[in-house]
Amino acid sequence: MAKIIDGKAIAQSLRDSVKVQIEDMRKVSPTFTPKLSIIQVGDREDSSVYVNMKRKAAKEVGMDFELFHLPTSITQFELVDKVHQLNNDPKVHGILVQLPLPDHLDDREVTEAIDPKKDVDGFHAINIGHLSKRASEPAFIPCTPKGIIELIKSTGVSMSGKKAVVVGRSDIVGTPVASLLTKNNCTVTICHSKTVNLPQIVKTAEILVVAIGSPEFVKGEWVKDGAVVIDVGTNAVEDKTKKSGFRLVGDVEYAEAAKVASHITPVPGGVGPMTVGMLVENTFLSALRFYKESFNRKIV
Amino acid sequence: MAKIIDGKAIAQSLRDSVKVQIEDMRKVSPTFTPKLSIIQVGDREDSSVYVNMKRKAAKEVGMDFELFHLPTSITQFELVDKVHQLNNDPKVHGILVQLPLPDHLDDREVTEAIDPKKDVDGFHAINIGHLSKRASEPAFIPCTPKGIIELIKSTGVSMSGKKAVVVGRSDIVGTPVASLLTKNNCTVTICHSKTVNLPQIVKTAEILVVAIGSPEFVKGEWVKDGAVVIDVGTNAVEDKTKKSGFRLVGDVEYAEAAKVASHITPVPGGVGPMTVGMLVENTFLSALRFYKESFNRKIV
Ligand SMILES: NC(=O)C1=CN([C@@H]2O[C@H](COP(=O)(O)OP(=O)(O)OC[C@H]3O[C@@H](n4cnc5c(N)ncnc54)[C@H](OP(=O)(O)O)[C@@H]3O)[C@@H](O)[C@H]2O)C=CC1
Ligand SMILES: NC(=O)C1=CN([C@@H]2O[C@H](COP(=O)(O)OP(=O)(O)OC[C@H]3O[C@@H](n4cnc5c(N)ncnc54)[C@H](OP(=O)(O)O)[C@@H]3O)[C@@H](O)[C@H]2O)C=CC1
Repeated sequence: MAKIIDGKAIAQSLRDSVKVQIEDMRKVSPTFTPKLSIIQVGDREDSSVYVNMKRKAAKEVGMDFELFHLPTSITQFELVDKVHQLNNDPKVHGILVQLPLPDHLDDREVTEAIDPKKDVDGFHAINIGHLSKRASEPAFIPCTPKGIIELIKSTGVSMSGKKAVVVGRSDIVGTPVASLLTKNNCTVTICHSKTVNLPQIVKTAEILVVAIGSPEFVKGEWVKDGAVVIDVGTNAVEDKTKKSGFRLVGDVEYAEAAKVASHITPVPGGVGPMTVGMLVENTFLSALRFYKESFNRKIV
Repeated sequence: MAKIIDGKAIAQSLRDSVKVQIEDMRKVSPTFTPKLSIIQVGDREDSSVYVNMKRKAAKEVGMDFELFHLPTSITQFELVDKVHQLNNDPKVHGILVQLPLPDHLDDREVTEAIDPKKDVDGFHAINIGHLSKRASEPAFIPCTPKGIIELIKSTGVSMSGKKAVVVGRSDIVGTPVASLLTKNNCTVTICHSKTVNLPQIVKTAEILVVAIGSPEFVKGEWVKDGAVVIDVGTNAVEDKTKKSGFRLVGDVEYAEAAKVASHITPVPGGVGPMTVGMLVENTFLSALRFYKESFNRKIV
């Protein structure tokens, strides 16, 4: 049976570490307070759940947190204007616009309006560009891919030279995780809905990352013996035995895959908590960078 | 035997088409003149050869061309200042800094100093970011990868669902070509010097792109029956039968690979001419965009 990669515990120790680092910084600079500002438009229930998790994590590590909960009726212009206000607010170190936005709003324009130096989600094109380039580093690595790499590292399995397969090519998970795996010297194959012979390709993966949004789509028998399996999928499926009426499952057929994999992430409790953990880490790193810059300016 | 993909001829018809489009634009706006400015630092012989090819192509299609040939002694500050001057010159539509630069200069900073809207090489992080994102388009697609996609299209072989292998992960060829192949719905594997079992992975490729800079490294017997083979490598090897004392070979063992591939690019005369062709096309597209923008401003 595979070892379970305990994302919840790893994320907890990540948050603990950020908390300590913030406290240490306060000893040097008592006013040092990283601040995360989130913009949420409308009342999607899942978005509210995610925003609350982020708020909770930010509070836990000792950050300031502010939510701008805007009505669905807001215009593109007003939304971008709000982003600009936060760009110009020196107290704010991380800006996140909770996606998806209502249909009449252009999430791409909003994402590109965020100051890349406060883009703690790492979705701005210039950050994605630096992520993909070998010679350079982005201001921020996107949270979910960054969390995935940490989970793989936690297994002790070395990435260099390993065959990795990423199923899904979205801008927020599949594509950036493929970039990071390549940077870590995996030989990466990126699959998507047009891929032919998916089971056969999955079978070659020593490291498998699945992010498609389709409950238990990847079967246990597709998984290679001894593979490290990272299941990003978070799908609500009906379950009458639960009070809520549903339970969460991943994109991988967990029970069967766990029989062949060497390590596997559970859903929930795998990638999800890491995403939130990396968000507070990115916000802390941003505050630290702004602090150092202002400090250097003072010296000059 | 494989069909030879005649990059020279395809590039010629591309230049012809750009030439006609420029002439057509001049009928509407007699002063319309795309202009390409190249900065070359030092006297590397290979760089001078490439710059001359670019000059020749620009002239052929009826563009203005200007070369700033700067001494190796130039400082980083002076070089970046030169780039800024060209950014601010409304007559210039395309800026290219011929790489590699001498060791004391930071090519990354210079690349990022170019106005992304004049970055006809497509190497600026923001253009690379938009290239990698699904939902967006860069101002410019890097010339060599763009040329490679055209060569594949010229074969009539559809890319969607095909297994593509890219050997090499550089910022200027391997990585962006992998992004473009993924956008064209190939299932892409990207290989590099840390890849284990390269011959076996190459063998799975229905579309194979090799850009490593190692003469005839990829053997004919690694190539899958019927594959489309794009050889980006341009390596000078000693050849006493030639007046110059050398000849150019690719990264693929051409004679053997041509026996199994369905289509193959020769070296020289494959990818090389396409790169130059795409550079003049990108410069033309840039001039057109600036023209349209100024036109729209006049109307408003
Ligand atoms: N735990 C966490 O923190 C996070 C979890 N998620 C979860 O991850 C999953 C994916 O999210 P996201 O990346 O945003 O999803 P998207 O819908 O943006 O992308 C899904 C990708 O999967 C591909 N795909 C869909 N169906 C198949 C299939 N049958 N075979 C192969 N490929 C397929 C799509 O291919 P194509 O491109 O061809 O359409 C696409 O590239 C979701 O369940 C989401 O909830 C996402 C973000 C964070
Ligand atoms: N025709 C044209 O217009 C152009 C031609 N070229 C030619 O293409 C070739 C590559 O250029 P460029 O991309 O700039 O080169 P780089 O040197 O920047 O990158 C080479 C890449 O190949 C990989 N590599 C090297 N050796 C091996 C090996 N034995 N097995 C697997 N992978 C290997 C490297 O891996 P790692 O990352 O692990 O080091 C690296 O990713 C050169 O011959 C160049 O002259 C380039 C640009 C334009």
